Amino acid sequence: MAETTPTGYPVFARIRLATPLDVPFIHKLIHQMAVFERLTHLFTATKSSLYSTLFISPPFQSFTVFLLELSSSPIPPLPSPSFTPIEKTFYFDLPLDDPEKDAFSVRYGNDQVAIAGFVLFFPNYSTFLGKPGFYIEDLFVRECYRRKGFGKILLSAVAKQAVKMEYGRVEWVVLDWNVNAIMFYEQMGAQVLPEWRICRLAGDHLQAYQNADL
Amino acid sequence: MAETTPTGYPVFARIRLATPLDVPFIHKLIHQMAVFERLTHLFTATKSSLYSTLFISPPFQSFTVFLLELSSSPIPPLPSPSFTPIEKTFYFDLPLDDPEKDAFSVRYGNDQVAIAGFVLFFPNYSTFLGKPGFYIEDLFVRECYRRKGFGKILLSAVAKQAVKMEYGRVEWVVLDWNVNAIMFYEQMGAQVLPEWRICRLAGDHLQAYQNADL
Repeated sequence: MAETTPTGYPVFARIRLATPLDVPFIHKLIHQMAVFERLTHLFTATKSSLYSTLFISPPFQSFTVFLLELSSSPIPPLPSPSFTPIEKTFYFDLPLDDPEKDAFSVRYGNDQVAIAGFVLFFPNYSTFLGKPGFYIEDLFVRECYRRKGFGKILLSAVAKQAVKMEYGRVEWVVLDWNVNAIMFYEQMGAQVLPEWRICRLAGDHLQAYQNADL
Repeated sequence: MAETTPTGYPVFARIRLATPLDVPFIHKLIHQMAVFERLTHLFTATKSSLYSTLFISPPFQSFTVFLLELSSSPIPPLPSPSFTPIEKTFYFDLPLDDPEKDAFSVRYGNDQVAIAGFVLFFPNYSTFLGKPGFYIEDLFVRECYRRKGFGKILLSAVAKQAVKMEYGRVEWVVLDWNVNAIMFYEQMGAQVLPEWRICRLAGDHLQAYQNADL
Protein backbone atom coordinates (compact mmCIF):
# COMPACT_ATOMS: atom_id res chain seq x y z
CA MET A 1 0.00 0.00 0.00
CA ALA A 2 1.37 3.39 -0.95
CA GLU A 3 1.75 5.88 1.85
CA THR A 4 -0.51 8.84 1.52
CA THR A 5 1.14 12.20 1.65
CA PRO A 6 -0.62 14.44 4.18
CA THR A 7 -2.22 17.44 2.60
CA GLY A 8 -3.35 20.75 3.95
CA TYR A 9 -1.71 23.35 6.15
CA PRO A 10 0.91 21.82 8.44
CA VAL A 11 1.10 22.80 12.09
CA PHE A 12 4.23 21.76 13.94
CA ALA A 13 3.46 21.04 17.60
CA ARG A 14 5.99 20.64 20.36
CA ILE A 15 5.50 19.82 24.02
CA ARG A 16 8.39 20.94 26.19
CA LEU A 17 9.13 21.59 29.86
CA ALA A 18 8.36 25.14 30.97
CA THR A 19 11.12 27.16 32.63
CA PRO A 20 11.01 30.21 34.94
CA LEU A 21 11.28 32.36 31.79
CA ASP A 22 7.82 31.12 30.80
CA VAL A 23 6.09 32.39 33.96
CA PRO A 24 4.51 35.42 32.18
CA PHE A 25 2.89 33.02 29.68
CA ILE A 26 1.82 30.60 32.38
CA HIS A 27 0.27 33.44 34.36
CA LYS A 28 -1.73 34.62 31.34
CA LEU A 29 -2.84 31.08 30.50
CA ILE A 30 -4.07 30.49 34.07
CA HIS A 31 -5.95 33.79 33.94
CA GLN A 32 -7.63 32.78 30.67
CA MET A 33 -8.61 29.52 32.30
CA ALA A 34 -10.18 31.44 35.20
CA VAL A 35 -12.11 33.60 32.73
CA PHE A 36 -13.27 30.50 30.83
CA GLU A 37 -14.44 28.86 34.08
CA ARG A 38 -16.03 32.14 35.26
CA LEU A 39 -13.91 31.93 38.38
CA THR A 40 -11.82 35.10 38.15
CA HIS A 41 -12.94 36.00 41.69
CA LEU A 42 -10.89 33.01 42.87
CA PHE A 43 -7.84 33.95 40.80
CA THR A 44 -5.18 35.48 43.05
CA ALA A 45 -2.02 34.01 41.53
CA THR A 46 0.63 36.57 40.61
CA LYS A 47 3.71 36.18 38.45
CA SER A 48 5.69 36.57 41.65
CA SER A 49 3.79 33.79 43.48
CA LEU A 50 4.27 31.48 40.48
CA TYR A 51 8.01 32.27 40.35
CA SER A 52 8.49 31.46 43.99
CA THR A 53 6.43 28.26 44.12
CA LEU A 54 6.97 26.57 40.74
CA PHE A 55 10.39 25.29 39.60
CA ILE A 56 11.52 24.65 43.18
CA SER A 57 12.41 21.02 42.43
CA PRO A 58 13.81 19.20 39.41
CA PRO A 59 11.11 18.43 36.81
CA PHE A 60 8.66 15.60 37.69
CA GLN A 61 9.70 15.52 41.36
CA SER A 62 7.25 18.25 42.26
CA PHE A 63 5.11 20.78 40.35
CA THR A 64 5.85 20.45 36.64
CA VAL A 65 4.56 22.39 33.64
CA PHE A 66 4.54 21.24 30.02
CA LEU A 67 3.95 23.97 27.43
CA LEU A 68 2.42 23.39 24.02
CA GLU A 69 4.13 25.31 21.23
CA LEU A 70 2.71 25.59 17.70
CA SER A 71 4.20 26.92 14.52
CA SER A 72 3.51 26.80 10.81
CA SER A 73 7.18 25.94 10.24
CA PRO A 74 9.39 23.34 11.97
CA ILE A 75 10.36 24.52 15.47
CA PRO A 76 14.15 24.81 16.07
CA PRO A 77 15.51 22.18 18.47
CA LEU A 78 16.00 23.09 22.11
CA PRO A 79 18.50 21.61 24.57
CA SER A 80 16.50 19.90 27.30
CA PRO A 81 18.39 17.35 29.40
CA SER A 82 15.47 16.38 31.67
CA PHE A 83 12.85 15.79 29.03
CA THR A 84 13.08 15.24 25.30
CA PRO A 85 10.39 17.45 23.77
CA ILE A 86 7.58 15.61 22.04
CA GLU A 87 6.93 16.69 18.47
CA LYS A 88 4.02 15.98 16.16
CA THR A 89 2.89 17.49 12.89
CA PHE A 90 -0.79 18.14 12.29
CA TYR A 91 -2.45 19.01 8.98
CA PHE A 92 -5.54 21.19 8.75
CA ASP A 93 -7.76 22.25 5.88
CA LEU A 94 -7.40 25.90 6.87
CA PRO A 95 -4.55 27.77 8.51
CA LEU A 96 -5.10 28.32 12.24
CA ASP A 97 -5.81 31.95 13.03
CA ASP A 98 -4.50 33.18 16.39
CA PRO A 99 -6.02 36.56 17.37
CA GLU A 100 -3.69 36.74 20.39
CA LYS A 101 -0.53 35.89 18.55
CA ASP A 102 1.41 38.88 19.87
CA ALA A 103 0.66 38.17 23.52
CA PHE A 104 1.54 34.48 23.28
CA SER A 105 4.54 34.17 21.03
CA VAL A 106 8.12 33.26 21.74
CA ARG A 107 10.99 33.78 19.33
CA TYR A 108 13.62 31.19 18.52
CA GLY A 109 16.03 33.12 16.27
CA ASN A 110 13.88 34.26 13.39
CA ASP A 111 11.08 31.84 14.14
CA GLN A 112 7.97 32.92 15.95
CA VAL A 113 6.19 30.16 17.85
CA ALA A 114 2.79 30.37 19.57
CA ILE A 115 2.32 29.24 23.17
CA ALA A 116 -1.01 27.45 22.77
CA GLY A 117 -1.62 25.72 26.09
CA PHE A 118 -0.18 24.01 29.14
CA VAL A 119 -0.59 21.18 31.57
CA LEU A 120 0.47 21.45 35.22
CA PHE A 121 0.99 18.20 37.12
CA PHE A 122 2.86 16.78 40.09
CA PRO A 123 3.45 13.43 41.81
CA ASN A 124 0.75 11.96 44.00
CA TYR A 125 0.93 8.66 45.89
CA SER A 126 -1.10 5.48 46.15
CA THR A 127 -0.54 3.64 49.42
CA PHE A 128 -2.33 0.56 48.01
CA LEU A 129 0.04 0.39 45.04
CA GLY A 130 2.98 1.54 47.17
CA LYS A 131 4.08 3.83 44.40
CA PRO A 132 3.66 7.35 43.02
CA GLY A 133 1.45 8.56 40.22
CA PHE A 134 0.84 11.91 38.60
CA TYR A 135 -1.99 14.28 39.42
CA ILE A 136 -2.95 16.76 36.70
CA GLU A 137 -4.08 20.00 38.29
CA ASP A 138 -4.78 21.86 35.04
CA LEU A 139 -4.87 21.23 31.36
CA PHE A 140 -5.68 24.21 29.16
CA VAL A 141 -5.60 24.97 25.45
CA ARG A 142 -6.28 28.51 24.24
CA GLU A 143 -9.66 28.95 22.56
CA CYS A 144 -8.48 29.31 18.95
CA TYR A 145 -6.64 25.97 19.18
CA ARG A 146 -9.38 23.88 20.77
CA ARG A 147 -11.05 20.73 19.37
CA LYS A 148 -8.04 19.92 17.19
CA GLY A 149 -6.36 17.17 19.22
CA PHE A 150 -3.93 19.37 21.15
CA GLY A 151 -5.46 18.67 24.57
CA LYS A 152 -5.13 14.99 23.81
CA ILE A 153 -1.39 15.21 23.14
CA LEU A 154 -0.84 17.22 26.35
CA LEU A 155 -2.67 14.59 28.41
CA SER A 156 -0.91 11.77 26.53
CA ALA A 157 2.49 13.35 27.22
CA VAL A 158 1.83 13.17 30.98
CA ALA A 159 0.59 9.57 30.71
CA LYS A 160 3.66 8.59 28.69
CA GLN A 161 5.96 10.19 31.26
CA ALA A 162 4.14 8.32 34.06
CA VAL A 163 4.71 4.99 32.29
CA LYS A 164 8.35 5.88 31.70
CA MET A 165 8.81 6.51 35.43
CA GLU A 166 6.93 3.29 36.28
CA TYR A 167 4.25 5.27 38.07
CA GLY A 168 0.98 3.55 38.85
CA ARG A 169 -1.65 5.98 37.66
CA VAL A 170 -2.57 9.42 36.38
CA GLU A 171 -5.50 11.23 37.98
CA TRP A 172 -7.37 14.50 37.58
CA VAL A 173 -10.87 15.81 38.24
CA VAL A 174 -13.79 16.78 36.03
CA LEU A 175 -17.11 18.52 36.70
CA ASP A 176 -19.92 15.95 36.74
CA TRP A 177 -22.08 17.93 34.28
CA ASN A 178 -19.28 18.27 31.72
CA VAL A 179 -20.37 15.27 29.63
CA ASN A 180 -18.18 16.18 26.66
CA ALA A 181 -15.07 16.21 28.83
CA ILE A 182 -16.11 12.95 30.50
CA MET A 183 -16.60 11.25 27.11
CA PHE A 184 -13.23 12.53 25.95
CA TYR A 185 -11.47 11.24 29.08
CA GLU A 186 -13.17 7.85 28.83
CA GLN A 187 -12.01 7.57 25.23
CA MET A 188 -8.49 8.27 26.52
CA GLY A 189 -8.84 5.18 28.76
CA ALA A 190 -9.74 6.91 32.02
CA GLN A 191 -12.30 5.68 34.51
CA VAL A 192 -14.56 8.22 36.23
CA LEU A 193 -14.97 7.33 39.93
CA PRO A 194 -18.59 8.11 40.85
CA GLU A 195 -18.48 7.87 44.66
CA TRP A 196 -15.58 10.03 45.78
CA ARG A 197 -16.02 13.68 46.79
CA ILE A 198 -13.31 16.25 47.36
CA CYS A 199 -13.03 17.81 50.82
CA ARG A 200 -11.32 21.17 51.03
CA LEU A 201 -10.09 23.05 54.09
CA ALA A 202 -9.12 26.59 53.06
CA GLY A 203 -9.27 30.28 53.90
CA ASP A 204 -10.24 31.24 57.46
CA HIS A 205 -11.20 27.66 58.27
CA LEU A 206 -7.63 26.61 57.51
CA GLN A 207 -6.04 29.62 59.22
CA ALA A 208 -7.90 28.65 62.40
CA TYR A 209 -5.45 25.78 62.79
CA GLN A 210 -2.48 28.13 63.15
CA ASN A 211 -2.62 28.17 66.94
CA ALA A 212 -4.95 25.24 67.36
CA ASP A 213 -4.49 23.25 70.52
CA LEU A 214 -4.79 19.86 68.93
CA MET B 1 -12.41 29.70 88.88
CA ALA B 2 -10.24 26.84 90.05
CA GLU B 3 -8.72 24.68 87.38
CA THR B 4 -10.12 21.22 87.31
CA THR B 5 -7.60 18.43 87.49
CA PRO B 6 -8.22 15.90 84.73
CA THR B 7 -9.23 12.53 86.05
CA GLY B 8 -9.18 9.07 84.56
CA TYR B 9 -6.55 7.07 82.76
CA PRO B 10 -4.05 9.29 80.95
CA VAL B 11 -2.99 8.49 77.40
CA PHE B 12 0.04 10.36 76.12
CA ALA B 13 -0.23 10.96 72.37
CA ARG B 14 2.56 12.08 70.11
CA ILE B 15 2.53 12.85 66.39
CA ARG B 16 5.97 12.57 64.81
CA LEU B 17 7.50 12.24 61.36
CA ALA B 18 7.90 8.65 60.20
CA THR B 19 11.34 7.46 59.13
CA PRO B 20 12.45 4.55 56.90
CA LEU B 21 12.71 2.48 60.10
CA ASP B 22 8.93 2.73 60.43
CA VAL B 23 8.19 1.12 57.04
CA PRO B 24 7.17 -2.25 58.56
CA PHE B 25 4.56 -0.42 60.69
CA ILE B 26 3.39 1.70 57.77
CA HIS B 27 3.02 -1.41 55.61
CA LYS B 28 0.90 -3.15 58.26
CA LEU B 29 -1.24 -0.05 58.80
CA ILE B 30 -1.91 0.29 55.05
CA HIS B 31 -2.84 -3.39 54.92
CA GLN B 32 -5.30 -2.95 57.82
CA MET B 33 -6.81 -0.02 55.95
CA ALA B 34 -7.26 -2.20 52.86
CA VAL B 35 -8.96 -4.85 55.01
CA PHE B 36 -11.22 -2.22 56.59
CA GLU B 37 -12.18 -0.87 53.15
CA ARG B 38 -12.59 -4.43 51.79
CA LEU B 39 -10.10 -3.59 49.09
CA THR B 40 -7.32 -6.12 49.78
CA HIS B 41 -7.51 -7.20 46.12
CA LEU B 42 -6.15 -3.73 45.25
CA PHE B 43 -3.38 -3.88 47.85
CA THR B 44 -0.06 -4.59 46.14
CA ALA B 45 2.29 -2.38 48.17
CA THR B 46 5.30 -4.18 49.62
CA LYS B 47 7.74 -3.04 52.29
CA SER B 48 10.28 -2.83 49.50
CA SER B 49 8.09 -0.60 47.30
CA LEU B 50 7.40 1.68 50.27
CA TYR B 51 11.13 1.91 51.11
CA SER B 52 12.02 2.90 47.58
CA THR B 53 9.26 5.46 47.02
CA LEU B 54 8.71 7.15 50.40
CA PHE B 55 11.41 9.26 52.09
CA ILE B 56 12.96 10.24 48.76
CA SER B 57 12.71 13.97 49.57
CA PRO B 58 13.01 16.03 52.75
CA PRO B 59 9.77 15.99 54.80
CA PHE B 60 6.88 18.09 53.43
CA GLN B 61 8.50 18.54 49.99
CA SER B 62 7.05 15.28 48.74
CA PHE B 63 5.35 12.21 50.29
CA THR B 64 5.30 12.65 54.07
CA VAL B 65 4.04 10.37 56.83
CA PHE B 66 3.07 11.37 60.36
CA LEU B 67 2.77 8.52 62.85
CA LEU B 68 0.56 8.59 65.93
CA GLU B 69 2.19 7.11 69.03
CA LEU B 70 0.29 6.39 72.24
CA SER B 71 1.49 5.41 75.68
CA SER B 72 0.14 5.24 79.22
CA SER B 73 3.28 7.03 80.41
CA PRO B 74 5.01 10.16 79.03
CA ILE B 75 6.86 9.38 75.80
CA PRO B 76 10.62 10.10 75.88
CA PRO B 77 11.66 13.06 73.72
CA LEU B 78 13.01 12.39 70.24
CA PRO B 79 15.43 14.54 68.24
CA SER B 80 13.56 15.74 65.15
CA PRO B 81 15.07 18.74 63.38
CA SER B 82 12.45 18.97 60.58
CA PHE B 83 9.33 18.78 62.70
CA THR B 84 8.75 19.29 66.40
CA PRO B 85 6.50 16.41 67.46
CA ILE B 86 3.03 17.40 68.63
CA GLU B 87 2.08 16.10 72.04
CA LYS B 88 -1.27 15.95 73.77
CA THR B 89 -2.53 14.12 76.83
CA PHE B 90 -5.96 12.49 76.77
CA TYR B 91 -7.89 11.13 79.76
CA PHE B 92 -10.28 8.21 79.47
CA ASP B 93 -12.60 6.50 81.94
CA LEU B 94 -11.12 3.12 81.11
CA PRO B 95 -7.64 2.14 80.02
CA LEU B 96 -7.37 1.56 76.26
CA ASP B 97 -6.94 -2.11 75.46
CA ASP B 98 -4.80 -2.87 72.42
CA PRO B 99 -5.15 -6.50 71.26
CA GLU B 100 -2.36 -5.98 68.72
CA LYS B 101 0.09 -4.38 71.10
CA ASP B 102 2.95 -6.72 70.21
CA ALA B 103 2.69 -6.14 66.47
CA PHE B 104 2.51 -2.36 66.76
CA SER B 105 4.87 -1.32 69.53
CA VAL B 106 8.15 0.51 69.43
CA ARG B 107 10.59 0.70 72.35
CA TYR B 108 12.26 3.88 73.55
CA GLY B 109 14.66 2.59 76.22
CA ASN B 110 12.41 0.85 78.71
CA ASP B 111 9.25 2.48 77.40
CA GLN B 112 6.89 0.65 75.08
CA VAL B 113 4.83 2.90 72.83
CA ALA B 114 1.96 1.84 70.54
CA ILE B 115 1.85 2.90 66.89
CA ALA B 116 -1.85 3.73 66.65
CA GLY B 117 -2.30 5.34 63.24
CA PHE B 118 -0.83 7.43 60.45
CA VAL B 119 -1.52 10.12 57.92
CA LEU B 120 0.20 10.24 54.52
CA PHE B 121 0.19 13.55 52.67
CA PHE B 122 2.12 15.49 50.04
CA PRO B 123 2.11 18.91 48.38
CA ASN B 124 -0.44 19.68 45.71
CA TYR B 125 -0.81 22.96 43.79
CA SER B 126 -3.52 25.49 43.11
CA THR B 127 -2.90 27.50 39.94
CA PHE B 128 -5.64 29.97 40.93
CA LEU B 129 -3.98 30.67 44.27
CA GLY B 130 -0.51 30.37 42.74
CA LYS B 131 0.63 28.40 45.72
CA PRO B 132 0.92 24.87 47.08
CA GLY B 133 -1.36 23.06 49.47
CA PHE B 134 -1.35 19.62 51.04
CA TYR B 135 -3.26 16.60 49.78
CA ILE B 136 -4.02 13.90 52.33
CA GLU B 137 -3.95 10.51 50.65
CA ASP B 138 -4.70 8.46 53.76
CA LEU B 139 -5.60 8.93 57.36
CA PHE B 140 -5.97 5.80 59.43
CA VAL B 141 -6.37 4.99 63.12
CA ARG B 142 -6.29 1.36 64.28
CA GLU B 143 -9.69 0.01 65.33
CA CYS B 144 -9.13 -0.11 69.10
CA TYR B 145 -8.23 3.60 69.13
CA ARG B 146 -11.10 4.93 67.01
CA ARG B 147 -13.76 7.48 68.02
CA LYS B 148 -11.50 9.01 70.68
CA GLY B 149 -10.26 12.17 68.93
CA PHE B 150 -7.04 10.72 67.51
CA GLY B 151 -8.07 11.09 63.86
CA LYS B 152 -8.84 14.71 64.59
CA ILE B 153 -5.36 15.47 65.90
CA LEU B 154 -3.74 13.74 62.91
CA LEU B 155 -5.80 15.85 60.49
CA SER B 156 -5.21 18.99 62.57
CA ALA B 157 -1.46 18.37 62.55
CA VAL B 158 -1.45 18.46 58.73
CA ALA B 159 -3.62 21.60 58.69
CA LYS B 160 -1.32 23.31 61.21
CA GLN B 161 1.74 22.44 59.13
CA ALA B 162 0.01 23.84 56.01
CA VAL B 163 -0.63 27.16 57.77
CA LYS B 164 2.95 27.24 59.03
CA MET B 165 4.23 26.84 55.46
CA GLU B 166 1.74 29.48 54.20
CA TYR B 167 0.05 26.91 52.01
CA GLY B 168 -3.37 27.72 50.61
CA ARG B 169 -5.45 24.65 51.37
CA VAL B 170 -5.64 21.06 52.55
CA GLU B 171 -7.64 18.58 50.48
CA TRP B 172 -8.62 14.93 50.64
CA VAL B 173 -11.48 12.75 49.38
CA VAL B 174 -14.39 10.99 51.06
CA LEU B 175 -16.95 8.45 49.85
CA ASP B 176 -20.29 10.19 49.23
CA TRP B 177 -22.26 7.63 51.32
CA ASN B 178 -19.97 7.99 54.35
CA VAL B 179 -22.18 10.54 56.12
CA ASN B 180 -20.39 10.18 59.46
CA ALA B 181 -17.05 11.03 57.90
CA ILE B 182 -18.59 13.94 55.98
CA MET B 183 -20.12 15.35 59.18
CA PHE B 184 -16.80 14.98 60.97
CA TYR B 185 -14.91 16.77 58.17
CA GLU B 186 -17.45 19.59 58.03
CA GLN B 187 -17.08 20.07 61.78
CA MET B 188 -13.33 20.36 61.15
CA GLY B 189 -14.07 23.31 58.82
CA ALA B 190 -13.89 21.49 55.50
CA GLN B 191 -16.19 22.05 52.56
CA VAL B 192 -17.35 19.05 50.51
CA LEU B 193 -17.29 19.89 46.77
CA PRO B 194 -20.36 18.20 45.23
CA GLU B 195 -19.63 18.55 41.51
CA TRP B 196 -16.12 17.25 40.98
CA ARG B 197 -15.38 13.65 40.00
CA ILE B 198 -12.04 11.90 39.99
CA CYS B 199 -10.74 10.57 36.67
CA ARG B 200 -8.19 7.78 36.85
CA LEU B 201 -5.99 6.36 34.12
CA ALA B 202 -4.32 3.18 35.38
CA GLY B 203 -3.35 -0.40 34.62
CA ASP B 204 -3.37 -1.50 30.98
CA HIS B 205 -5.07 1.71 29.91
CA LEU B 206 -2.10 3.66 31.27
CA GLN B 207 0.51 1.21 29.95
CA ALA B 208 -0.95 1.73 26.47
CA TYR B 209 0.69 5.16 26.45
CA GLN B 210 4.19 3.68 26.69
CA ASN B 211 4.74 3.67 22.95
CA ALA B 212 1.84 5.90 22.03
CA ASP B 213 2.32 8.01 18.95
CA LEU B 214 0.88 11.18 20.41
